[in-house]
Amino acid sequence: MKDILGGKGANLAEMTRLGLPVPQGFTIGAKACIEYSNKKTMGEGLPEEIKLRMQELEAVTGKKFGDAKNPLLVSVRSGAAVSMPGMMDTVLNLGLNETTVEGLAALTNDKRFAYDCYRRFIQMFSNVVLRFDISLFEHVLEATKQQAGMRFDNELSPEHLQSIVKKYKALVLEKTGKAFPSDPVEQLNLSVGAVFESWDNPRAIVYRRVNRIRDDLGTAVSIQAMVFGNMGSDSATGVLFTRDPNTGEKVIYGEYLTNAQGEDVVAGTRTPKHFSEMAAEYPAIHKQITELCALLENHYRDMQDIEFTMERGKLYVLQTRSGKRGARAAVKIAVDLVHEGKIGKDKALLIVEPEQLERLMHRGVDPKAKVTVLAKGLPASPGAATGQVVFDADTAEEASEKVKVILVRPETSPDDMHGIVKAQGVLTSRGGMTCHAAIVARHMGKPCVVGCEALRIDLDKRTMTIAGKTFKEGAIISIDGATGRVIEGPVPLVDPTIGGDFEELLGWADEVKRLGVQANADTPTDAQKARDLGATGIGLCRTEHMFMQKERLPVVQEMILATTVEERKAALDKLLPMQQSDFVGILKAMHGYSVTIRTLDPPLHEFLPNVEELTDEVKELRKAGPSKELTEKEDLLAKTRQLHESNPMMGFRGTRLGVVYPEIYEMQVRAILGATVELIKQGYNDIKPEIMIPLVGIAEELRLMKELVLKVEKEIKEQTGISVEYKFGTMIEVPRGALTADEIAVYAEFFSFGTNDLTQMTYGFSRDDAEGKFLKDYVDRKVIKYNPFQVLDPIGVGKLVRMAVELGRKTRPDLKIGICGEHGGDPESIHFCHDANLTYVSCSAFRVPVARLAAAQAALGKKYQD
Amino acid sequence: MKDILGGKGANLAEMTRLGLPVPQGFTIGAKACIEYSNKKTMGEGLPEEIKLRMQELEAVTGKKFGDAKNPLLVSVRSGAAVSMPGMMDTVLNLGLNETTVEGLAALTNDKRFAYDCYRRFIQMFSNVVLRFDISLFEHVLEATKQQAGMRFDNELSPEHLQSIVKKYKALVLEKTGKAFPSDPVEQLNLSVGAVFESWDNPRAIVYRRVNRIRDDLGTAVSIQAMVFGNMGSDSATGVLFTRDPNTGEKVIYGEYLTNAQGEDVVAGTRTPKHFSEMAAEYPAIHKQITELCALLENHYRDMQDIEFTMERGKLYVLQTRSGKRGARAAVKIAVDLVHEGKIGKDKALLIVEPEQLERLMHRGVDPKAKVTVLAKGLPASPGAATGQVVFDADTAEEASEKVKVILVRPETSPDDMHGIVKAQGVLTSRGGMTCHAAIVARHMGKPCVVGCEALRIDLDKRTMTIAGKTFKEGAIISIDGATGRVIEGPVPLVDPTIGGDFEELLGWADEVKRLGVQANADTPTDAQKARDLGATGIGLCRTEHMFMQKERLPVVQEMILATTVEERKAALDKLLPMQQSDFVGILKAMHGYSVTIRTLDPPLHEFLPNVEELTDEVKELRKAGPSKELTEKEDLLAKTRQLHESNPMMGFRGTRLGVVYPEIYEMQVRAILGATVELIKQGYNDIKPEIMIPLVGIAEELRLMKELVLKVEKEIKEQTGISVEYKFGTMIEVPRGALTADEIAVYAEFFSFGTNDLTQMTYGFSRDDAEGKFLKDYVDRKVIKYNPFQVLDPIGVGKLVRMAVELGRKTRPDLKIGICGEHGGDPESIHFCHDANLTYVSCSAFRVPVARLAAAQAALGKKYQD
Repeated sequence: MKDILGGKGANLAEMTRLGLPVPQGFTIGAKACIEYSNKKTMGEGLPEEIKLRMQELEAVTGKKFGDAKNPLLVSVRSGAAVSMPGMMDTVLNLGLNETTVEGLAALTNDKRFAYDCYRRFIQMFSNVVLRFDISLFEHVLEATKQQAGMRFDNELSPEHLQSIVKKYKALVLEKTGKAFPSDPVEQLNLSVGAVFESWDNPRAIVYRRVNRIRDDLGTAVSIQAMVFGNMGSDSATGVLFTRDPNTGEKVIYGEYLTNAQGEDVVAGTRTPKHFSEMAAEYPAIHKQITELCALLENHYRDMQDIEFTMERGKLYVLQTRSGKRGARAAVKIAVDLVHEGKIGKDKALLIVEPEQLERLMHRGVDPKAKVTVLAKGLPASPGAATGQVVFDADTAEEASEKVKVILVRPETSPDDMHGIVKAQGVLTSRGGMTCHAAIVARHMGKPCVVGCEALRIDLDKRTMTIAGKTFKEGAIISIDGATGRVIEGPVPLVDPTIGGDFEELLGWADEVKRLGVQANADTPTDAQKARDLGATGIGLCRTEHMFMQKERLPVVQEMILATTVEERKAALDKLLPMQQSDFVGILKAMHGYSVTIRTLDPPLHEFLPNVEELTDEVKELRKAGPSKELTEKEDLLAKTRQLHESNPMMGFRGTRLGVVYPEIYEMQVRAILGATVELIKQGYNDIKPEIMIPLVGIAEELRLMKELVLKVEKEIKEQTGISVEYKFGTMIEVPRGALTADEIAVYAEFFSFGTNDLTQMTYGFSRDDAEGKFLKDYVDRKVIKYNPFQVLDPIGVGKLVRMAVELGRKTRPDLKIGICGEHGGDPESIHFCHDANLTYVSCSAFRVPVARLAAAQAALGKKYQD
Repeated sequence: MKDILGGKGANLAEMTRLGLPVPQGFTIGAKACIEYSNKKTMGEGLPEEIKLRMQELEAVTGKKFGDAKNPLLVSVRSGAAVSMPGMMDTVLNLGLNETTVEGLAALTNDKRFAYDCYRRFIQMFSNVVLRFDISLFEHVLEATKQQAGMRFDNELSPEHLQSIVKKYKALVLEKTGKAFPSDPVEQLNLSVGAVFESWDNPRAIVYRRVNRIRDDLGTAVSIQAMVFGNMGSDSATGVLFTRDPNTGEKVIYGEYLTNAQGEDVVAGTRTPKHFSEMAAEYPAIHKQITELCALLENHYRDMQDIEFTMERGKLYVLQTRSGKRGARAAVKIAVDLVHEGKIGKDKALLIVEPEQLERLMHRGVDPKAKVTVLAKGLPASPGAATGQVVFDADTAEEASEKVKVILVRPETSPDDMHGIVKAQGVLTSRGGMTCHAAIVARHMGKPCVVGCEALRIDLDKRTMTIAGKTFKEGAIISIDGATGRVIEGPVPLVDPTIGGDFEELLGWADEVKRLGVQANADTPTDAQKARDLGATGIGLCRTEHMFMQKERLPVVQEMILATTVEERKAALDKLLPMQQSDFVGILKAMHGYSVTIRTLDPPLHEFLPNVEELTDEVKELRKAGPSKELTEKEDLLAKTRQLHESNPMMGFRGTRLGVVYPEIYEMQVRAILGATVELIKQGYNDIKPEIMIPLVGIAEELRLMKELVLKVEKEIKEQTGISVEYKFGTMIEVPRGALTADEIAVYAEFFSFGTNDLTQMTYGFSRDDAEGKFLKDYVDRKVIKYNPFQVLDPIGVGKLVRMAVELGRKTRPDLKIGICGEHGGDPESIHFCHDANLTYVSCSAFRVPVARLAAAQAALGKKYQD
């Protein structure tokens, strides 16, 4: 049903069946949108169909569309199958013109109301349908208010509004050369088309990309008889969540505005009242809503986000949908719903988005730190962020290429999506907890503070004033989304504490998932963190970072510059104890779990200085005449030049180093097995090192490396009398490795897919180059759906993975197979790994909870869109 | 049989069966060699086995090994299953010591002969078994000859020889600390071991690599009773070919030395007499040999290379084998043998090595050019070469990294293999047409002049004197292997004329081959050449070379520096007529055949200047203050920097250019179809353009490009009223292209495998880096058998090729599939292409004949070793 009718349409039908007070209306399915999108015009027969349905609506409402006496007004809203709050367009009060507005005034005996509706209609229609620059309208509105000495729109008199309407229409005529359309049928058809078109507006496209929603779904359009929240003080409009969307607490959390229409709440132009205040102001309605919330939650078995309108004391529900929620709330609600018996554990695991779990681990402001609090706003989305102040979304997008930014706006609109995506956090001076900025930031897990009324923004001067201080664009501030604090300058951060709900949910995940979840970690601290977050092993411990450490780099360079095997071995002998102590630390931290240590991978030139800088140094030294330093630098330069590669990604690295300079890998293997012996001597009885050779594409490479490992193992045994248990395996990261996995598995006890490199070579995309040069174009032009470095390509790269699994297990049925590329922490890629029968995934420590949940969802058969 | 006994052993047995006069002996199979090679010592029981076989030999010869009165002397020779002339070691006259030498002298009543044998034995044994530096012996020999005022070894008196033997043995004792072994059994066992070991000597390894012979075959060892060509003036030793190995003419072609042993001929130390002279000197033997040649050719149905010895008027055949021959001879012999009814056409196609055909196309010295001829030697291997003079193989190898070299030696020995491989040509002052240098150079298709007696080489001063002029190492000379001329300085070259045999053989090839053979050509001249050599189409016409032309490059840079689509289109408009005229030329040259034109492939920065140079220029210009030139150069520098890539091989190139800048490909497609229209208007009615998109890995890329092509096609039709017939297809060169070939084939009418890139990405080997850095190590350490850029990897890359063929044809059963990487001209890779059911191969024009023959051999089921 959802696919055909769109989210809103389906919900309206269902609410009507539940007996809820829903305004009359009908829905045009999303198929018509897709047709419109392809042909850039309405499908044949659609206007006729709309006309017929409008006649039915006239019959049930007893009003007539365009009638001078008793006019039917309608709203035209989008309703996509997947909720995209605020991303698409809506037109309210449709059907008004010079005649019907008078009819409405007479009928309601409220001229102010009628012209307020007309003013709003012209504004929305011009914006949505005519693509008119409505800031021109705002100038008119502001000027009128200032002249009248008024602050809020709802203080304007009927005459003010009438004059505003006149000015609006004159502006449209002047700027577009066409009169504002007065025929309601024309208004309606144009609006339906515009809502269809809004499916492809830039902010909707960005939203879909960020949230990985397919582009070809299209939106349904709902046409409903208007109900009015702006009919005076016994009218109101509001938005609420059946639970707190930020904490997950089981209290109705909402806001309303008296004498207003829906967009006033969402836009955040007036700061609304909290739902609890309604208990005193409209006790009956408050009670009705409270009951209705329970009813809807029971029905949908999830927290609901409800829009309602009270028209002259009568309640209407405009829409309900599963509410977007912050990460903390998502977990608490899921767990609570289980405890309340509303859903089972499996369902709980499925309704939390894995990505949200990482956001839960956002760091907060160190409570012990001394900070200068400039002001406090509403804590709309938790986490802390520091960055340079920017005042619009375009600047945010541009500046974010180089620095971290905080987007500071009076309020945000859906047009700011691209800036919010790039900003570290969002700060607004207006709006409540349910305003656009709050909803979007919460959903993205970005820190957000809204409604910070002490903040004055001057968009012309590009400054903001707060607590008596003026900050220029580019000044550094911090925001604390957990408390609503706005802080001057940067702040020290601390790790989050994660609640019991989190542990409980992940415990359920561990019960159902089949994939193991390990972590990529290079230090004992990271290993401990990963273990704390539930990792049951280290899937990738890189050794090159150990080589990069400041005090070691000169020794590493000594090794690289060696001209004989003896010199090289001498340098390696110095590195051996350092490496061994690294391994002791990490193996100890993971006692009881396997630690997969990868031998040296990057090309050696990565350990040498930059050629250009070195050339300059040598030039300088030459001026001073011969010296020992000059000779040394010249040697270094020569070697650096010699090691230069035109395509280092496919150059002299990985196992190739081990084949040509076996002594390097020998040292590393000695350090691994030596560290294990050291720990065994200290009484650790369950140390599980695994030696992993990178970049193997030829079985013979691995055979040679195995020979080398066996030699070292034998030596260690002879020297210490201790037999070390270990596993030997390889990364599968060049296509040939996957294609010949049956031959390679002869020597490997485990495979670990290095999907970063595998993706690079399978596509022939150098990640460094592609992401800067053409990958964005590829996504924009829909050549590819996602950046394949973020989501594992299931078609091409995936085929290699499946092939390697099959071939490898043909040779060695008990082959342990994992993945340690960045994809190991991406939920969709984890699903792939589950389907491809991998043994485990390995990802960065902070993504371990994400992976645990995604692995559970995969085991539960959750479907992705593609 | 050959595998077990080795070439020589098998031949000896067969010749004995044919009733030929073969010295008695036995053979130790190659398995014993492999065992020796693995264990570095003789297999258990082998010495015992040798002893038993020696006893049998004693019985049939009536002599006794080590006997003082009637000593049995033997030769110990290698005999690999695949002939490797001169690569492995031989020991002659084995069994001599202080006692037996006297016995031999008494028995033959020839003290000079006996001591000549003993001297030779000590020399060869010391060299082969003791690894003794025998230049020390040569000093002794030369000093003795000088003191005695003699020129040749065979002029020495018995006393001279006796004294030389004494000095030799003293030298061995002095330098090695051990007496020269006198026990014949010890001599024999050590020699057998040494011959086994010689399988793994560096020159044999190089030879096997060059000739793609497997390393694990091992060599057999033949032990034969000695027959002596050095028993006086009625004794001789010689080598002959049953046809001329250089021209293929059906005349016995050979050389002999009176009173000499075999190595004297091969080493080229004395210039031998031509076989025809034997008719007068030894008419009976000459007649016997002539009959024997006919017998052996009839038996083996191929030209034979025969070693013989005449001992006191009695002829012995020491060995026969298929003779190595020059390219011209190979073709003529094969064709003649068919005409003579000795073999069928299929066999003729199989006995010519495809590689040889390319050598036939070596260019020669322009007959119209005025050249300074310094001297004339023997024309040992055709073709002309120019290069710097180098005097030893090591220098040749080293210098050849940077410049072209001619290896100039008194004579060459198998130890010079690595230098010959790297040299453009070889010139020796001594030796005949069958000397080592001649045989090796001929086989490799390298120009070679031998026996140039006017040439004096001073190895100490590193100069050579010829025609009164002295040249230092590094001087430039040319050699003309077709005439034997040695020429001062460089020479102008002309294309070869190819004989009727060549056409006839390739005509037979075309009858049996299934693969089409096309050529890679970028210009009308190259296209015409390819067509003349039998190419039936252009499989790859690169368009980037057209962009690189001097007068076009500024326009290309204009296009790259464009900041708007309009600017870019303006530059492209200028390029359009140039491209179109290119295409007119090449399409016309190939009228009747398809021409596959690849759209722009390389990254754009290849068309921009070098960053370092540009930086320097800008620095200089800045000193002079602001200028228009400075601004331009600064812009150019900025763009060049922006386009810089860390891994350009996997960067912004190929179809990615077409997706991001469709206007570039549009211009190219317009030029292709426009050129076709132009030709149609000129009355050409069978122009077959094919548009090929490079680097496609995603079906959507190709769909977009097809859309673009269809658009241009429509425009051209509207503008000209002419419908152009063309094919649209893609290269398969990134692994993902192969993996998703079923999806890609939806849009492609043909595939062409770009196996250079496909190999790079499948292995993750950047060719530029790998060949300079680790690939040599990989081959040396036997991690891979061959450089996969030369021979298509049948396991990994091959799996992708087969997969793409299968998937592509599943979608489109009539899919045309070719290969246009360098592998398209490699015989072994062509076999693979045949097996993988490709439609055609495409290679450089000069390799078209190679490919035609290799394709025929593949169709005839020729087997490669692996």
